[in-house]
Amino acid sequence: MTSLVQHITIDCANAYELAGFWSQVTGQPISEHDFPGDPEALVALPNGTGLLFIQVPEAKSVKNRVHLDLRPDITRDAEVERLLGIGATLVSDMRRPDGKGWVVLADPEGNEFCVERSAAERAEQG
Amino acid sequence: MTSLVQHITIDCANAYELAGFWSQVTGQPISEHDFPGDPEALVALPNGTGLLFIQVPEAKSVKNRVHLDLRPDITRDAEVERLLGIGATLVSDMRRPDGKGWVVLADPEGNEFCVERSAAERAEQG
Repeated sequence: MTSLVQHITIDCANAYELAGFWSQVTGQPISEHDFPGDPEALVALPNGTGLLFIQVPEAKSVKNRVHLDLRPDITRDAEVERLLGIGATLVSDMRRPDGKGWVVLADPEGNEFCVERSAAERAEQG
Repeated sequence: MTSLVQHITIDCANAYELAGFWSQVTGQPISEHDFPGDPEALVALPNGTGLLFIQVPEAKSVKNRVHLDLRPDITRDAEVERLLGIGATLVSDMRRPDGKGWVVLADPEGNEFCVERSAAERAEQG
């Protein structure tokens, strides 16, 4: 007997709006069953799990203890620029001179996440 | 250009020990590259993402703003009993008389997660 991860659930102030940001991050649509103003919104991922945004009354107060690490399909640096352009903010730049390392960004509601190197970059740089 | 979710990363006090709990939850082994006492431990999931446990100095202080929803392979209630038996604690019982609903548990470091109904239960109960 075991369990699968069905959803990664993210508390937020505006479910549909934050789902819209993550829809752009992942390239996956918001569920057609969800609409602006709904207290929940789902972005299903190709691997069978989903990002589920749920409206809660309380605001974010501390650094999230659970966060997502992202693997871009092209390059880390281009993806960081793209995400900054769609509403992410820079938290911490952990890139190193040898090309390794990562960047910590926050989504429009302040949830921290990391942008790692792409698979091609890891293969090339080790 | 898009990104995949590579890891769901969980801050913790004891990476290998907490990974051991989640290894039992998911039925997936801790990476053979990780050992007790290491500051990081990975449980790779069959869908290509992984649960990455990272030791941090600060303790958990508030309800996690990001949590996992689990889909058991057999039944919700049997899975809840199993998880309580391996170190989870009950946070909130949201089960309803019609059989729907879920249970909020916490892992041994207090990270909240939800146990939903299995696919078979959802198909049967709507």
